[in-house]
Amino acid sequence: MTSLVADIGGTNTRVALAEGPVPVPGSVRRFRNADHPDLTDVLAAYLAEAGSPEIDGACAALAGPVRHGRGKLTNLDWIIEEDAIARVAGTGRVKLLNDMAAQGHALDHIAPGALETVLEGPAQPGGPRLVIGIGTGFNAAAVHALPHGTLVTEAEAGQVSLPVGDAETLSLARFLAEPDGFAPVEEALSGRGLGRLYDWATAEAGTPRRLDGHGVLAALDTDPEARRAAETFVRLLGTVAGDLALNHLPYGGIYLIGGMACAVTPLASGMGFAEAFRRKGRFAELMRAFRVLTVTDDSAALTGCAGYLASAE
Amino acid sequence: MTSLVADIGGTNTRVALAEGPVPVPGSVRRFRNADHPDLTDVLAAYLAEAGSPEIDGACAALAGPVRHGRGKLTNLDWIIEEDAIARVAGTGRVKLLNDMAAQGHALDHIAPGALETVLEGPAQPGGPRLVIGIGTGFNAAAVHALPHGTLVTEAEAGQVSLPVGDAETLSLARFLAEPDGFAPVEEALSGRGLGRLYDWATAEAGTPRRLDGHGVLAALDTDPEARRAAETFVRLLGTVAGDLALNHLPYGGIYLIGGMACAVTPLASGMGFAEAFRRKGRFAELMRAFRVLTVTDDSAALTGCAGYLASAE
Repeated sequence: MTSLVADIGGTNTRVALAEGPVPVPGSVRRFRNADHPDLTDVLAAYLAEAGSPEIDGACAALAGPVRHGRGKLTNLDWIIEEDAIARVAGTGRVKLLNDMAAQGHALDHIAPGALETVLEGPAQPGGPRLVIGIGTGFNAAAVHALPHGTLVTEAEAGQVSLPVGDAETLSLARFLAEPDGFAPVEEALSGRGLGRLYDWATAEAGTPRRLDGHGVLAALDTDPEARRAAETFVRLLGTVAGDLALNHLPYGGIYLIGGMACAVTPLASGMGFAEAFRRKGRFAELMRAFRVLTVTDDSAALTGCAGYLASAE
Repeated sequence: MTSLVADIGGTNTRVALAEGPVPVPGSVRRFRNADHPDLTDVLAAYLAEAGSPEIDGACAALAGPVRHGRGKLTNLDWIIEEDAIARVAGTGRVKLLNDMAAQGHALDHIAPGALETVLEGPAQPGGPRLVIGIGTGFNAAAVHALPHGTLVTEAEAGQVSLPVGDAETLSLARFLAEPDGFAPVEEALSGRGLGRLYDWATAEAGTPRRLDGHGVLAALDTDPEARRAAETFVRLLGTVAGDLALNHLPYGGIYLIGGMACAVTPLASGMGFAEAFRRKGRFAELMRAFRVLTVTDDSAALTGCAGYLASAE
């Protein structure tokens, strides 16, 4: 039983074959979206190159909302439809997932070597789990293991109020705020957000200058404002992850995922992630019930697509 | 098929008989907890007075955490166990629910006359719903209709960071903060919280004085600080409900429930609830997808107990 799985990002699409819940090693190929008119062209190119294997299920994850078998990328004008995937893959068993949902469905199939511990804690088997995605954007999904399958909930967690607990963070929220005065989590906790934190730190220091998120991470040892931006990022991530934990009680564990999650994981312990995560007044002790892991395998969305098809068999 | 249902609060316990998913009108009785050593004594008194009917299922809701058929009230030293309820009710079919879970299970059975609209909006049939409980404490529960039943999620949503978007609210958060500097939502959005908002407003006005939540609501027309406390409560509730909506995307509707929810509902439109709920930057338009209703029937937890037993038949 071979299935076709795809992870459609804003810039690249990765495609693989899967046997059961795991992508076939070596079958993953990356396509630049700009080289193709739409997803079906990418999938057709992949299948032709793979020798036109027989496909009995297809699942694609995309960074954008999915409704009624139809999705739209947040920053590319591709419309993606299950029907069109079905035609090119030659199977009627097709599922389009939001990328957070795909990552939720991946949790049971991630290799232990692809998990890095951020905070130790017990993990209640079968307990709710929480995926927090931090990359181009920010979002979260609760994952509930049910008797008849897995429920992955939808959210726009990056649009929630940025938590502010002191005057410094209030000055940051004002700096990041949209015209109506509202500062959402994603304006700080994303790749672009880390660049905005640097804008703010350098403006506060009286020497405004620009770096993108990667530039900030590269300058930690030489630029005090880069360090301040990164420390602010890590502390805010701790607070936001703690708030999400209280909203979802993920006794089965919290999984950080995405490019920015991987990039800041080595900084977490030195920059106060645990202190911020657990600073919840008389509920500080409860916060020790939640372990936090980072998923370092960047093919988790492909794994989730394969896992979804395997569990729906 | 007669079942026994109970709603155990910190001060009173209400008990009723139910036929199917609805408590029998006129069967509800209220007991003062202080007059009884434990819940089984209350249930035995109720059943004796009701003529010892045959009971084929029992369900109790309590204001506190429930684990493995055992619960503890937050502010009373009663331990409540399914086994003990089974003995006094004479049935092996017993369920103990957290009160938020019970209210989640009640949603399908609330009479339309017991719902008051706070914000108009579409309601997607079968979409996720969200219960926000505002009374002695603050909490929330997402309600997911699944093919094989209803999932009501657990949370400690009252312990999430109080949202702060301006200097005035930061001064409030500092006033409410616990020793570690953390101010949770529940310190403002609860019956006690409204009293604390009045403490803050009067301290800011240079004339510190005290009123409890009910006192504040009674003084709205005569005391400018009472009005300021209530306005702050309503605005914060709008912001917090909006953040919860983004975390759960309750396209099926948001249900406010509890004594404080009912008390502030008449104030919501005049004190800026809608504006605060929808002030989410470029996601302001999405917020119109969520309708907000207040459940004015204060026996919703009993209804939820009856509904739980009926759906588990």
